[in-house]
Amino acid sequence: MTSFSRLVRFESDDGNSYFSDLGSGSGGPPSPGTKLEAFGSYEALVAKFSPKTLTVRRLLAPVPRDGIPIYCVGLNYRSHAKEAALSVPSYPPLWTKPAAALAHPNQEISVSDFCARSLPDYEGELVFVTSRECKDVKPSEAKDYILGYTIGNDLSCRMFQLPKNSAGQFFFAKAFDNFAPIGPILISPDLYETAKCGGVTLKLNGEVRQQADLQKDMIFSPETILSHMSQGTTIPAGTAVMTGTPRGVGAFRKPKTFLRNGDVVEVSMPMAGTLRNTLKFE
Amino acid sequence: MTSFSRLVRFESDDGNSYFSDLGSGSGGPPSPGTKLEAFGSYEALVAKFSPKTLTVRRLLAPVPRDGIPIYCVGLNYRSHAKEAALSVPSYPPLWTKPAAALAHPNQEISVSDFCARSLPDYEGELVFVTSRECKDVKPSEAKDYILGYTIGNDLSCRMFQLPKNSAGQFFFAKAFDNFAPIGPILISPDLYETAKCGGVTLKLNGEVRQQADLQKDMIFSPETILSHMSQGTTIPAGTAVMTGTPRGVGAFRKPKTFLRNGDVVEVSMPMAGTLRNTLKFE
Repeated sequence: MTSFSRLVRFESDDGNSYFSDLGSGSGGPPSPGTKLEAFGSYEALVAKFSPKTLTVRRLLAPVPRDGIPIYCVGLNYRSHAKEAALSVPSYPPLWTKPAAALAHPNQEISVSDFCARSLPDYEGELVFVTSRECKDVKPSEAKDYILGYTIGNDLSCRMFQLPKNSAGQFFFAKAFDNFAPIGPILISPDLYETAKCGGVTLKLNGEVRQQADLQKDMIFSPETILSHMSQGTTIPAGTAVMTGTPRGVGAFRKPKTFLRNGDVVEVSMPMAGTLRNTLKFE
Repeated sequence: MTSFSRLVRFESDDGNSYFSDLGSGSGGPPSPGTKLEAFGSYEALVAKFSPKTLTVRRLLAPVPRDGIPIYCVGLNYRSHAKEAALSVPSYPPLWTKPAAALAHPNQEISVSDFCARSLPDYEGELVFVTSRECKDVKPSEAKDYILGYTIGNDLSCRMFQLPKNSAGQFFFAKAFDNFAPIGPILISPDLYETAKCGGVTLKLNGEVRQQADLQKDMIFSPETILSHMSQGTTIPAGTAVMTGTPRGVGAFRKPKTFLRNGDVVEVSMPMAGTLRNTLKFE
């Protein structure tokens, strides 16, 4: 049923964006200068319509189109609920990031002085992307609406997650431009069944800080999340959902540590590659 | 500087949407069948380009274009913080409603069985709309980015605002399709200076339930909200911002009362008309 094994999106030398299927191997994403069989849209890739051989200038987040708000899930790992001393709710806590928060693999994340002073932190996460518009999806049918899986970094300014500052609403702390890098490779649901055994790993400047156990530590599965978020609500095709972070964020380390100018954050999952972003304080 | 006095958007008999300026009078919005001088876009209205005389079939929410998520503000009235027994935060608490939440004046709001069982409630609010894309706006410059003011109803399912259900994140409780009726008339910033003295009134089945004092009870002004929400974040032109609700919501009445099938909710402000919506439980 799946129309690709490992999907990438890239900008070519003509400045336009293209899609390519890397196949089912386990190699990393293509470097700049690599030539790929490319399609002008996700739909064209599925239809195998009008392929061209094109050169990768830079990788883009592997979502079917831009301009769609990103969903986020909170408190989705028992280990993170424990480090935050919070109890697990009955349903997945949800909020969004604006479309302008989307950032790309290898993109330097420009952090404004306002954000740099507001305790910036990382959150390595599993991300899934929806395949078609949906509403009122039953948990048993949710698989039919998931296009694939990749990884992301739910960058957050902890200052604005403090209850005294935003009354507990997480949206603003995470809504900043380019605070949602996603990618590099979107893997098919079939490949995810194998990849998830390896989990999601986050490294800060080469040192492992988070390891997400997607099988035993995760609370709400992607299917449960998608079913819940679609109740009474139309979810657009191509919506990326950041599914929450495990323990190990900087804000709960002792002593607390926050992101600094020049820090390199890497999030990885087997077959999905490594999402590497350097922070550049303005 | 302002390009209109009182703006409406409507669907005409050809099924397309048009914009018209009602002028600076205090009359209500046009009824179906009324003929108006109409423009095919907000930009065309400003340019007075290619006006036509067209018949109103139904009013639409007075925003320059569809497809843009709506911002919401929490805890923005001292009276509401008091009834909710919550302290006022340092910054405006923010979240969003999806673009599909937008609903129109006089639109029957279809409430799914899932929502009907989840303690639906009203929130009458002042709404402002942004005029152009902005980022890092200073409070003193925020006026330059506000297109106009109208009213809205931030419909909410209280079940999902309970901390045990969504860990305190308000997004899901308010994100349902058509849970953000807005309109009918967007008034200019100049007219708002007079209109705000009258405040925002919400009636349920003809009985006054909320009266928002926009001068003494409101905590964060529209300018303060827009400045804060734009820090580090690109805000699209045409973004509607629901600025929070005063005391009087059903969830804090004694005994608590929630919305029922057939209820008629009316929100009004001088010169902006009355936003009337009937709830239809599926």
